[in-house]
Amino acid sequence: MLSFLSDYTEGAHPKVLRRLNELNMISLPGYGEDEYCEEAKRKVKKFCGRDDLQVQFLTGGTQTNLLTISTMLRRYEAVIAAETGHINVHEAGAIEYSGHKVITLPSVNGKVSGDDLEEYMEKFYGDDTHDHMSIPGMVYISHPSELGTLYSKAELKKLSDVCRKYDMPLYMDGARLGYGLVSNESDLTIEDIVELCDVFYIGGTKVGALCGEALVFTKNNMPKGFVTMTKQQGAMLAKGRLVGMQFDALFTDDLYLEISRHAMKCAMELKEAFIRKGYTLYIDSPTNQQFVILSPEQLERLSKIAAFSVWEKIDSEHIAVRFVTSWATKEEDLQELIRNL
Amino acid sequence: MLSFLSDYTEGAHPKVLRRLNELNMISLPGYGEDEYCEEAKRKVKKFCGRDDLQVQFLTGGTQTNLLTISTMLRRYEAVIAAETGHINVHEAGAIEYSGHKVITLPSVNGKVSGDDLEEYMEKFYGDDTHDHMSIPGMVYISHPSELGTLYSKAELKKLSDVCRKYDMPLYMDGARLGYGLVSNESDLTIEDIVELCDVFYIGGTKVGALCGEALVFTKNNMPKGFVTMTKQQGAMLAKGRLVGMQFDALFTDDLYLEISRHAMKCAMELKEAFIRKGYTLYIDSPTNQQFVILSPEQLERLSKIAAFSVWEKIDSEHIAVRFVTSWATKEEDLQELIRNL
Amino acid sequence: MLSFLSDYTEGAHPKVLRRLNELNMISLPGYGEDEYCEEAKRKVKKFCGRDDLQVQFLTGGTQTNLLTISTMLRRYEAVIAAETGHINVHEAGAIEYSGHKVITLPSVNGKVSGDDLEEYMEKFYGDDTHDHMSIPGMVYISHPSELGTLYSKAELKKLSDVCRKYDMPLYMDGARLGYGLVSNESDLTIEDIVELCDVFYIGGTKVGALCGEALVFTKNNMPKGFVTMTKQQGAMLAKGRLVGMQFDALFTDDLYLEISRHAMKCAMELKEAFIRKGYTLYIDSPTNQQFVILSPEQLERLSKIAAFSVWEKIDSEHIAVRFVTSWATKEEDLQELIRNL
Amino acid sequence: MLSFLSDYTEGAHPKVLRRLNELNMISLPGYGEDEYCEEAKRKVKKFCGRDDLQVQFLTGGTQTNLLTISTMLRRYEAVIAAETGHINVHEAGAIEYSGHKVITLPSVNGKVSGDDLEEYMEKFYGDDTHDHMSIPGMVYISHPSELGTLYSKAELKKLSDVCRKYDMPLYMDGARLGYGLVSNESDLTIEDIVELCDVFYIGGTKVGALCGEALVFTKNNMPKGFVTMTKQQGAMLAKGRLVGMQFDALFTDDLYLEISRHAMKCAMELKEAFIRKGYTLYIDSPTNQQFVILSPEQLERLSKIAAFSVWEKIDSEHIAVRFVTSWATKEEDLQELIRNL
Repeated sequence: MLSFLSDYTEGAHPKVLRRLNELNMISLPGYGEDEYCEEAKRKVKKFCGRDDLQVQFLTGGTQTNLLTISTMLRRYEAVIAAETGHINVHEAGAIEYSGHKVITLPSVNGKVSGDDLEEYMEKFYGDDTHDHMSIPGMVYISHPSELGTLYSKAELKKLSDVCRKYDMPLYMDGARLGYGLVSNESDLTIEDIVELCDVFYIGGTKVGALCGEALVFTKNNMPKGFVTMTKQQGAMLAKGRLVGMQFDALFTDDLYLEISRHAMKCAMELKEAFIRKGYTLYIDSPTNQQFVILSPEQLERLSKIAAFSVWEKIDSEHIAVRFVTSWATKEEDLQELIRNL
Repeated sequence: MLSFLSDYTEGAHPKVLRRLNELNMISLPGYGEDEYCEEAKRKVKKFCGRDDLQVQFLTGGTQTNLLTISTMLRRYEAVIAAETGHINVHEAGAIEYSGHKVITLPSVNGKVSGDDLEEYMEKFYGDDTHDHMSIPGMVYISHPSELGTLYSKAELKKLSDVCRKYDMPLYMDGARLGYGLVSNESDLTIEDIVELCDVFYIGGTKVGALCGEALVFTKNNMPKGFVTMTKQQGAMLAKGRLVGMQFDALFTDDLYLEISRHAMKCAMELKEAFIRKGYTLYIDSPTNQQFVILSPEQLERLSKIAAFSVWEKIDSEHIAVRFVTSWATKEEDLQELIRNL
Repeated sequence: MLSFLSDYTEGAHPKVLRRLNELNMISLPGYGEDEYCEEAKRKVKKFCGRDDLQVQFLTGGTQTNLLTISTMLRRYEAVIAAETGHINVHEAGAIEYSGHKVITLPSVNGKVSGDDLEEYMEKFYGDDTHDHMSIPGMVYISHPSELGTLYSKAELKKLSDVCRKYDMPLYMDGARLGYGLVSNESDLTIEDIVELCDVFYIGGTKVGALCGEALVFTKNNMPKGFVTMTKQQGAMLAKGRLVGMQFDALFTDDLYLEISRHAMKCAMELKEAFIRKGYTLYIDSPTNQQFVILSPEQLERLSKIAAFSVWEKIDSEHIAVRFVTSWATKEEDLQELIRNL
Repeated sequence: MLSFLSDYTEGAHPKVLRRLNELNMISLPGYGEDEYCEEAKRKVKKFCGRDDLQVQFLTGGTQTNLLTISTMLRRYEAVIAAETGHINVHEAGAIEYSGHKVITLPSVNGKVSGDDLEEYMEKFYGDDTHDHMSIPGMVYISHPSELGTLYSKAELKKLSDVCRKYDMPLYMDGARLGYGLVSNESDLTIEDIVELCDVFYIGGTKVGALCGEALVFTKNNMPKGFVTMTKQQGAMLAKGRLVGMQFDALFTDDLYLEISRHAMKCAMELKEAFIRKGYTLYIDSPTNQQFVILSPEQLERLSKIAAFSVWEKIDSEHIAVRFVTSWATKEEDLQELIRNL
């Protein structure tokens, strides 16, 4: 089977795994207090273009979202997200389990619109009964979004402005950040993200690591007691080196972006092939997730040769499906898929 | 520096790492639903001597304790532990953060005494106001304990009997289970543990894995919705293969016990050397953690050549310290340490 | 000022207060274990037409919703409500604070539609990823709704059928239940509610009591440990008699319905006056909350003589407002308001 | 039966109830935003001797403890209490349910010793692993304690000093504060409490009210969002007037202290009678709870004429029991009890 199911179906990029092999028998302190974690943090900061960032390594995306949101919100505050946001749909109610409401705004192609946000905030504080309501305290966005779409710099600026007006941190879930940064259709740089977001994470799990995300606080705003709360949530690895060493490798010699570019090249080639062969796009995605509409017959036929996922049954004749490329996509698999479209 | 600080200072056992290398580029479904996780579960069950067990892989000890305890307790129930229990001391209040009280009983060399437990339960239900109190709903023990000690079969039987009388699950934290199973001073087999405990975990992180614990439910008693709650707590790895493949390696060709035996041999040799050279044991531990009392001078001198940890300052002339051996302890390091005692 | 702000602006109905006065100096056990609480429970059961109900007294609506929903849901379950549901809007995120998501369905005049519910459930279980989602575990409705509307017997039957199909309890928030039961436009009896709902509460605070709600479990389904969890949530009164005695009075000689009828008569007279005088109804409410659309001039003029609340600013020329009648509405106030419309 | 079971067995003091009767039909805004709540707050501040206090009314003791502690602690912090503290024993794990550990210190006659506290804090911060532990963030004391004992001014000063050194609020549970303030053996004034504590509550439920406690923040330190969190916890009465009016009455014409003095006079007379008649005190309590040791025969005999509670079965021949006086204790009941000792 050709592998287009997701960007977490293989292990680690060989260079990442090599790093783990090389350093395996070195004796190091636990809990991420070792020199390789420190070195990886330095490299992540350099990648972000700023020395004064706070970086913490965590294991997975839901864990990172849960810990970040629940430690940055006050007890009576809620997080705002698009209806389609990962925290609202596919994290098993983790945010609510931590005590906080997810307030949803309409999804605009997977994104939160700055105008919608502004309108919501004005209406909220215009309501006399708002102290009997969950107070909006943070905005969550994903970039690339769950639909593969990207915020433009202007869109992110608008969100950031509204957030600052209402003193709410803006948080970007960058599970697939690498794939967003290398997109030809993006005008948003990592430096912009550092400037406009209060906190974001650089995804490793979906971009070449076995596991691991690098959470970045941009305003010296890491919550007091963050390490203790990481432990409290069961999110601290005894062998923190596991994530540190992987990020050390990913941010050496531009590996993170290099492998993202490979995925992007494959995705764009696939998108062009879909269009060329007359398929209808479900959404016009500029990143490594490609969504296309199939007929039941096409679905049956393609399912026999490739692994991909059914996204939504639109009606009896149209099924939206998702094909995902990654650092691990093989050129020959891509060509084989295209031949079979 | 000679490495006796803990059993999680190195990476993975070479055979474990080799497994990750061999299978790295295979494309697999996520979230632990791959064939290697299945195979590893089969091997764990075989190791336990029973087919009808439910096995789940998790990433670390605190995470496993938190998820297990919080999903097995009813909302109004508390877990009973020794005062020295890891969940009561070094998990940053994770259990309480999940909403449950930890009721403490005196530590008897790191263990909960069955008699103390029975007395507590009788007193509790003899109190007319007990429905205004946290109801005991589970018993937590660690084996080996945080002090390296072990439950005898009779001791575990007694605890198990009291638990069944009061319909409370008995949960064993086996972070270092391998080291306990191979101890010469233990009469407790894995089959006994399966029979007497309702749930326990077999630790990987401290016994040769980069990360990972195998949680075992022995009575077909895995809580409903356990997978969803694993996700909800941020404890589910996208690449579940990471833990599955490691346990697959650990439970192939008796590796788990073989590497435990190595640590045990080193620990016993070290203990004998301590005794021979006139040191006073802080506690007589039959497992891989050895506790000894040093004078300030001895502490200073040994600190220069070996990494170990200060356990407790007893008084100005006596400091209890801990030396830990593991699967990774080198024979030459051990001899060098012994020469320097 | 004429009082039409809400149904909780006065103290207790004089007969309720008289009961508290008469029994004030009697010495009784605490925590609701006294004979007056028992007697009140008996009367509530008689009112409901069934002996085999479980009745618990609580102090207020949010407290009752919070305790009921959080004790009946499993940890990974969510409650479904209309977007306008009190638990979703005006309870300060209490449900989420207890760890559970509120899944919202569109509000159909303040109500949940059985068809919408069925469609949601089918889609939910048709989604392969649903075990990474909050599992729907309960349905919350309010009757009368926050918009004064009522479920018909057929509507409630449909909801109940879907709930049973999916093994979810159906919970009715009856903060204003009295006003619903006596509405001329209702075909739903208390016996129907007992049969079709799994749990509901009969509101006291808004129907003649100083405080207090009677929570009724209809299927012998009161959660285990409910009393302990009531205490745990800070929801148990030391002087439980305070609520018991009030419900004893409210359910003596048909007082609860009698005072509800008074409110209803006033509300209907007011609605007719609005219509007669050419006002546009915001919603056609058959109960004690009447919603009407005012111009800014009308709003200014009426605000000088009566207390009522602004519900929603529709546009610059239309403001929806709410007038509420209650057991305490004075006939002369009503006539004075009508004269001034 | 003579009533010595507790101080919450009767309704409200007649003057308190009269106030509720007089103001019953006045129309007022809800949620404690009425003028009587304001007036009561002014009177409470005057009683405390300071204008710059923040006062909030709540309904009961557990509710007040839960809300105060859970809103003042940071997520990773724990509250320190005596082992016998109400929050540790008889509040059904409410504090833990809110996510926080209760760290216990030995009970010194029901009290926390300042020296024990200081020693605990020094040891805690001397431990290198303390960021893997629940961080002490608050100290809870009860005055009078659960055993009727009182802190001296010097004792409270010591606790306050340690708390300030470690930047922890000192919280006093004053469920029975009136009885403590009027004790002949107390050198602690309300002004001292205001100065030395960061937050405390003045109990109404056990001192003449049907329900209600007045929570006082002394350092302009009421947590942000406190009103929203009160609602969130289900602790806000729609008819907030219920508690406001009662405190208005209690703090008019010195009523609160006057009725406390009555209870104290009765308690001291009872204690003297116990001593005179040769009974052994279980603890020498200077307040309205009197603890004495009975033989099984005495217990049986006295149980026939008076309601009181068994505190602890010491051994087969000695049972500690508790007799409680209150504002409601009748002179003739007291004499009848004394005659029967």
